Amino acid sequence: MAKSFILKGDLVFNKVKDKLETIKDGFLVCKDGEVEGVYKSFDEIGDEFKQFELHDYSGHLIVPGLTDLHAHAPQYMFRGLWMDMELLDWLNTHTFPNEAKYADMDFAKKAYRIYTNDIKKGATTRLVAFGTIHTDATLMLMDLMEESGVVSCIGKVNMDRNSPDYLVETTEESMRETRRWLEEVCKKDYKNTMPILTPRFIPSCTDELMKDLGKLSKENNLPLQSHLSENLSEIEWVKELCPWSEGYGDAYDKMGCFGGEGRKTVMAHCVWSSEEESGLMKKNGVFVAHSPSSNSNLSSGIAPVRRYLNEGVNVGLATDVAGGSHGSIFRAVSDAIQVSKLYFRYIDESMKPLTLAEAFYLATKGGGAFFGKCGSFENGYEADILVLDEKSIPTPLDDLKLDERLERFVYLADERDIIHKYVRGNQLF
Amino acid sequence: MAKSFILKGDLVFNKVKDKLETIKDGFLVCKDGEVEGVYKSFDEIGDEFKQFELHDYSGHLIVPGLTDLHAHAPQYMFRGLWMDMELLDWLNTHTFPNEAKYADMDFAKKAYRIYTNDIKKGATTRLVAFGTIHTDATLMLMDLMEESGVVSCIGKVNMDRNSPDYLVETTEESMRETRRWLEEVCKKDYKNTMPILTPRFIPSCTDELMKDLGKLSKENNLPLQSHLSENLSEIEWVKELCPWSEGYGDAYDKMGCFGGEGRKTVMAHCVWSSEEESGLMKKNGVFVAHSPSSNSNLSSGIAPVRRYLNEGVNVGLATDVAGGSHGSIFRAVSDAIQVSKLYFRYIDESMKPLTLAEAFYLATKGGGAFFGKCGSFENGYEADILVLDEKSIPTPLDDLKLDERLERFVYLADERDIIHKYVRGNQLF
Repeated sequence: MAKSFILKGDLVFNKVKDKLETIKDGFLVCKDGEVEGVYKSFDEIGDEFKQFELHDYSGHLIVPGLTDLHAHAPQYMFRGLWMDMELLDWLNTHTFPNEAKYADMDFAKKAYRIYTNDIKKGATTRLVAFGTIHTDATLMLMDLMEESGVVSCIGKVNMDRNSPDYLVETTEESMRETRRWLEEVCKKDYKNTMPILTPRFIPSCTDELMKDLGKLSKENNLPLQSHLSENLSEIEWVKELCPWSEGYGDAYDKMGCFGGEGRKTVMAHCVWSSEEESGLMKKNGVFVAHSPSSNSNLSSGIAPVRRYLNEGVNVGLATDVAGGSHGSIFRAVSDAIQVSKLYFRYIDESMKPLTLAEAFYLATKGGGAFFGKCGSFENGYEADILVLDEKSIPTPLDDLKLDERLERFVYLADERDIIHKYVRGNQLF
Repeated sequence: MAKSFILKGDLVFNKVKDKLETIKDGFLVCKDGEVEGVYKSFDEIGDEFKQFELHDYSGHLIVPGLTDLHAHAPQYMFRGLWMDMELLDWLNTHTFPNEAKYADMDFAKKAYRIYTNDIKKGATTRLVAFGTIHTDATLMLMDLMEESGVVSCIGKVNMDRNSPDYLVETTEESMRETRRWLEEVCKKDYKNTMPILTPRFIPSCTDELMKDLGKLSKENNLPLQSHLSENLSEIEWVKELCPWSEGYGDAYDKMGCFGGEGRKTVMAHCVWSSEEESGLMKKNGVFVAHSPSSNSNLSSGIAPVRRYLNEGVNVGLATDVAGGSHGSIFRAVSDAIQVSKLYFRYIDESMKPLTLAEAFYLATKGGGAFFGKCGSFENGYEADILVLDEKSIPTPLDDLKLDERLERFVYLADERDIIHKYVRGNQLF
């Protein structure tokens, strides 16, 4: 597969968070899987690149691939179901019994095949996702993700307390299986699939387990994902469980599971994080995975994303299937804008709603930063690219600007309207 | 076209607002365009109906058609665009200049053709919509709606103040054109298309015009649609404009434009209606067109739908394109549930979130009541029917209940997943 090529079309991307760059009938040069440059005319392209194969997508929007910073792969099977409970009841009633099914490898293969097929067809080019506690099923998920061509960080989940008999590990078993999982991953020699440590959340993990995972993360410079300050009852529970901490984020931090020293960490939700908590996130470089659909569906609330942006905290978007009902990050863009307007209206009028440019930044460069130079068409960025088709949204307006066309796509189109997809310069379709 | 037939499939519908009726592998008998009955087995069907043609949709969900209680047909052309303003700025900057284009009949035909094609393909079987102030373009919209087979109430808009030069009428002209429009409609002999008086909202209509329209409505028992208590600045403005009233709804009422005496009236939004205002709505039988997408997009707020249901006010769902970004009432169902959860979380914890059954009721029987016996599969209801396909949402779960399958469809599927549609027993596709 050639990883050097030229694309022609209508380019839209962010360099900075509050402004979209647009080039009508522009050219994007990809060299060895990285963006070499974007140009207004063919003439501007360097002579040494002009002979690259040209794919002419004239009239189509060409945008960076999107990053889903938080999803539960095993829950995709029940996306859009059972949306009538809050977090803790929903976990016990629906989520845990269904995650237990992944002990059965035949079931796991069937379910994960559906998820990874949809990921491949969809807008996501980078994914950070939970598996289950089951090591072998998680390895299978990683095999399937590798096959999809989408770049991902996938985690075997750790749970050693407050969990049902059918979905729990001892502390020792949890660490042993985590190590076995990491060893198996090493043997696989994946190109696009990386392990990420995944303590479910503090209520599911003893202090001992959390500290062991923190140590493992530090020793091997492994990324880590978990949940933070999603739901009011959950936060109260964490207070009871960690009376020695100054808060939920501080508890993770004191146990070595909250970034810092260059370790990549992503925390899902952060709906109710105080300024102390977000300050610690900024200090440690922790990413917020903003999951607006999930936070509405589970009646959790609205994360103060404007505040996090003002504070300089890293933020990306997330589907959080299946708390989030939808697997699409395009949908998360419009959801994020909509809930930010309700936050503005009801909670704090000093926090202006997110603009399209800002929410699209979160979906691309913002979340993409978790993976490095990813989510933009600036020079040197990895070439994650979507080519879009707008024929499902006809209009008599023939003078729309490129950012307006992107806005329409975000609000109205879906996976079926993505016609070509490239990840690290590899064309998936 | 035969309007008597039997459908076989998985039936889901509401009789009451908080419970879904489900019949797996059931039979729906339609006689002369009305539901004769639903049955668990073919044997239960009356002998006189057994010879009706049977359409076998086994394995597919069959649900009542959906009612869109409020949309702006001319704004469909810019759905999903320019979502960065509140109501009054958005009207002046984008909406009014674009509505002015409908003075040009060629443009109007092109734009309305796109809208009515999409309505035909979509979930909406009953529509209450605004046109523009332009009589001839509104008549063309009505012709195209009639051609679509979807039942609708369409209104020529009235605007005689606080409007730009290029989109305003004198009071006299507005009434004269309204009368001409009604006369033309009479000549058309539509089967499925009805006129509805349409003062834009109080800020756009003088007291004199409102009173004349109220009188016309009363004399001819004509339905009426407008907007109510959508946005805080709008409400302040109405207070200044109608100092003689006790509020926005009361102002409409005192000018004869707020239902009562059996006149059908629908008011869009009602985000900020007081208990006095909703009390008047209940007394007069006024319908609330709940538009959750629009109310988020324009930072208006969240309508207290649970309160209206508790009070016994008529409520249906609405897309409100293009304040609402989406033309789908399925989408409005999930949007209504999601915002009701944020209302519960942030505004009033005594107001429980809407359930799927309740939100689906609003989309079918709730809003359908504006058209009479419409939006259910109870005996004697008009046969508005959708046959759904779930293949775009694969899952390894093979034991889902019918109401769970409907929930998934509501959250995840779209127009492209509707495979057959009947309105008043006529098969549209």
